[in-house]
Amino acid sequence: MNTVLARFNILAGKEAEAQEAIKKQAASVESAEPGALAYIFHRNRKNPTEITVFEIYKDDEASAAHRDAEHMGTFRSYFGSLFDPDTVKIDRLERIAGFSR
Amino acid sequence: MNTVLARFNILAGKEAEAQEAIKKQAASVESAEPGALAYIFHRNRKNPTEITVFEIYKDDEASAAHRDAEHMGTFRSYFGSLFDPDTVKIDRLERIAGFSR
Repeated sequence: MNTVLARFNILAGKEAEAQEAIKKQAASVESAEPGALAYIFHRNRKNPTEITVFEIYKDDEASAAHRDAEHMGTFRSYFGSLFDPDTVKIDRLERIAGFSR
Repeated sequence: MNTVLARFNILAGKEAEAQEAIKKQAASVESAEPGALAYIFHRNRKNPTEITVFEIYKDDEASAAHRDAEHMGTFRSYFGSLFDPDTVKIDRLERIAGFSR
């Protein structure tokens, strides 16, 4: 299981378009990537332009499928126009303990 | 739904004890907090002493039950002996889009 925490900021004035792009991306991952077990976009309650994505992939193959997906290319293309590429932070995580239900 | 991202570091040399405390805390939340929908501890693959907890509570009542739980008091008491209190970062998040399955 591969867990990823991705963070980046929405560019000023691009909130509405960014929200549309985010919703479309979430729907594409859900329908086209069976190996994506979780893919959840959040805004920070204190700073709503700060986006956090919590992602779980079944295995390395599912991670690779995500990276190479056409919708991922589209979403990536918004960095610069909707999202600030200088704010991107990607953390690869390993589960120690816990549950979801 | 209340989502929280909590981050903190394990103190040097305390990895094994910290892992025990983490496993016990995850088990206590799972068994004693029906309003906790997810509670997952991770280590950062690049820096294994950096812990990230992804938490989802059903509502404000479930968040309050977590804050006031006896096991949470026990876990909190490890900050200073197992976990570095100066590294704690808590982000309160709001879900925009996405899924888990």
